[in-house]
Amino acid sequence: MSKPKSVPVAIVGCGVVGTATAQILTRDRELLAAKTRTPLELRYIVSKTYSSAKAAGLDEALFEPDLGKVMADSELQIVIELVGGIETARSVIEQAIDAGKHVVTANKALLAMHGAELFERARSAGVSIGFEASCAGGIPIVRALYDGLVANRIDAIYAIVNGTCNYILSQMTNERKSYLQALEEAQADGLAEADPTLDVSGLDSAHKIAIMTSLAFGQAIPFELIPVDGIEAIELADVKFAEKLGYLIKLLAIAERQSSGITVRVRPAFISRNHPLAWVSGPFNAVSVYGHVTGHTMYYGRGAGGPPTASAVTADVVSIASGVLPRTFEEFGYMLGKNPVAEDNPVADTAHRYYIRVMVRDSPGALSSMTSILEHYGISIASVLQDEVADTNGGESTYVPVVIILHTTGERAVLDAASEINALPTTGDRCSVITIVDEYPEPAAED
Amino acid sequence: MSKPKSVPVAIVGCGVVGTATAQILTRDRELLAAKTRTPLELRYIVSKTYSSAKAAGLDEALFEPDLGKVMADSELQIVIELVGGIETARSVIEQAIDAGKHVVTANKALLAMHGAELFERARSAGVSIGFEASCAGGIPIVRALYDGLVANRIDAIYAIVNGTCNYILSQMTNERKSYLQALEEAQADGLAEADPTLDVSGLDSAHKIAIMTSLAFGQAIPFELIPVDGIEAIELADVKFAEKLGYLIKLLAIAERQSSGITVRVRPAFISRNHPLAWVSGPFNAVSVYGHVTGHTMYYGRGAGGPPTASAVTADVVSIASGVLPRTFEEFGYMLGKNPVAEDNPVADTAHRYYIRVMVRDSPGALSSMTSILEHYGISIASVLQDEVADTNGGESTYVPVVIILHTTGERAVLDAASEINALPTTGDRCSVITIVDEYPEPAAED
Repeated sequence: MSKPKSVPVAIVGCGVVGTATAQILTRDRELLAAKTRTPLELRYIVSKTYSSAKAAGLDEALFEPDLGKVMADSELQIVIELVGGIETARSVIEQAIDAGKHVVTANKALLAMHGAELFERARSAGVSIGFEASCAGGIPIVRALYDGLVANRIDAIYAIVNGTCNYILSQMTNERKSYLQALEEAQADGLAEADPTLDVSGLDSAHKIAIMTSLAFGQAIPFELIPVDGIEAIELADVKFAEKLGYLIKLLAIAERQSSGITVRVRPAFISRNHPLAWVSGPFNAVSVYGHVTGHTMYYGRGAGGPPTASAVTADVVSIASGVLPRTFEEFGYMLGKNPVAEDNPVADTAHRYYIRVMVRDSPGALSSMTSILEHYGISIASVLQDEVADTNGGESTYVPVVIILHTTGERAVLDAASEINALPTTGDRCSVITIVDEYPEPAAED
Repeated sequence: MSKPKSVPVAIVGCGVVGTATAQILTRDRELLAAKTRTPLELRYIVSKTYSSAKAAGLDEALFEPDLGKVMADSELQIVIELVGGIETARSVIEQAIDAGKHVVTANKALLAMHGAELFERARSAGVSIGFEASCAGGIPIVRALYDGLVANRIDAIYAIVNGTCNYILSQMTNERKSYLQALEEAQADGLAEADPTLDVSGLDSAHKIAIMTSLAFGQAIPFELIPVDGIEAIELADVKFAEKLGYLIKLLAIAERQSSGITVRVRPAFISRNHPLAWVSGPFNAVSVYGHVTGHTMYYGRGAGGPPTASAVTADVVSIASGVLPRTFEEFGYMLGKNPVAEDNPVADTAHRYYIRVMVRDSPGALSSMTSILEHYGISIASVLQDEVADTNGGESTYVPVVIILHTTGERAVLDAASEINALPTTGDRCSVITIVDEYPEPAAED
């Protein structure tokens, strides 16, 4: 067979990921050429600013400010959208699709919110969209979900997919920093944005689990149905109690098959020190996937940053140029834009074990008024921990923390009971309620 | 586009993995049909014995003892080779290729030793070979190496790919069992074969790293060039010292890019408790891959057993039926049978830190005669640990263990020095020399 001609590619948006991608496509051109028989040609970088590109040694001749001119190049086959944000990015992708170009994007927010339409549009136009970079940076989890694990009915995904949150929680755990101290350090080290809201609120993790849910379960979940709790309310006291009880606190993006349906949520959770996810510290990410055949598999690596994300972007570019991804896109059923959309997300119907920390006034009857509320909701207490650490958060030294661990309980009952506990005259006005995520049961061991 | 006809498939060999694969292809037929637009039809199971298949509820009508009849079915598109062993399996695969069938196999020994010829034969015949199941059971590491990480120059692979060894070493570490006790328990639990040689000798791990090396580095390594040490010589004393020093002992399959070339070896190694591979215990496997763009990514799961291996086999069957794997097989450069074959495996030229435990007669001058040998070879000592634990292995209580940790040193010098130390009148006749595998340096952190 004759050597195919090289495939022209354009990068739109040249920030951190765009620069790293351009570096791979130019500096590592020979390496890529040895790994696939279809050579790539980076023909355009569409960007207003050249400064970071210049610092990275990229050829200025590649830069083209006019997106229309790029889209009009009939030879161009692949457009890599790395502008970020929603509206501009969507417009770039739509223009590319309408011009008959394949698309590669790392834009998790856009895909979580408008993925289905974009994928339908691409399918109608006979082009494909690569999005390996959208869920966990350099970890090839997207391929694992639709391809490597295709024989599995996926039962659960527990994912640590925000490096900023994981770094902050690791610092709180290992260095006993408060949330604010750890956040400030992360900002100083460039591991958190000046405005860290998207990360610490859990929204970024929610974008990623929305995409993974569609791939894994064959059911799209409307983004606005996903309950999202961030790490802002985690106190050092909770981190310490977690440790004392044999757990760590991690921000988990969770999708689980429940009797009531597929449920998806993002929240800080207690996870056992024996679970592999508990070992994932600092800026690293990991995704645990439970399949009915493989049982537990986990995928670990850097989930953000220029080069790791560019690695995933480039894998999609190579796959499209080789004709592999377009085929996958056509053939595989659990793909964005092909799946039915869930009408609800019955998180309140799920059941877990829970940790509750209540600040209680050290008075007779305080504990029993709480336990009778729990009893009223039919909630069974596994253990109570009340030690002599005085409350150092509030000013009132008469409040002491009481930790109650619940047996498996429906979420709705726990939240209702917590509201009543908060209203008691003998307690502080906001108890911490944290889900305990137990190891998902493995399929029966077979040889 | 019209719905394609279903793709007929045959399984040859119906042991543990064959049975599990047949179960997926029958019991889970609807699930698979929802995940890909090309339905599969399990048409034949070629096997002499029906007993395990019957127990698993497989339809007896699927069984066909005559392989020739199966190969003569011109509609049959995919042959799954699960007979194991070398010669019979090779013959099955060759017949399938020559009959124009695609092949899926889990046979690591066969591919490590004869993969290149089989892949060339398949390529000439215009068919593909799927082998996801050959390296790490249910962990989709083969796809990660050639596809997901394609943008990377792989610099190193450290792999725990034998569950039997990992289980035995975990039991020695956690339960303080001796090697023989742990082996017997593993056999009683069905986690080790009656003849465990293939596993505990490291040969099974060597088969797997040989395949992974070709995929990752684009260079095939002749199997006979891979030095293989198993876990049989690991003593509880070494496990305890490892722990005292902040390490665990794991059987690692290692492939590394060195200035002298790609080096491949299997050996027990000290690995830091902070390295993610140290967390992999019991029957689980994991593969750490270091790429020049992603840095460290790790893939974790069950590396053996019927259902996990069948998950990987089925992924290949789906991929072939969908036309994806044949395309990949054609297009991707670092694929078995396409890579140049290394002429040597310069392991002796590598440099590491090392642990040496010597049983020393408690006499004046014993330590200094060892250190002068090390000095003679230009080897620099990082630390010496001599505590008061008496030798409980030999009968002579006058021998005490002395542990010496070396700074980074060339392997050749260490082995030569160890031989001289063994010959000293004041030492036992075989010191333990164990490589310390440090975290592979990450690429410079970028944002």
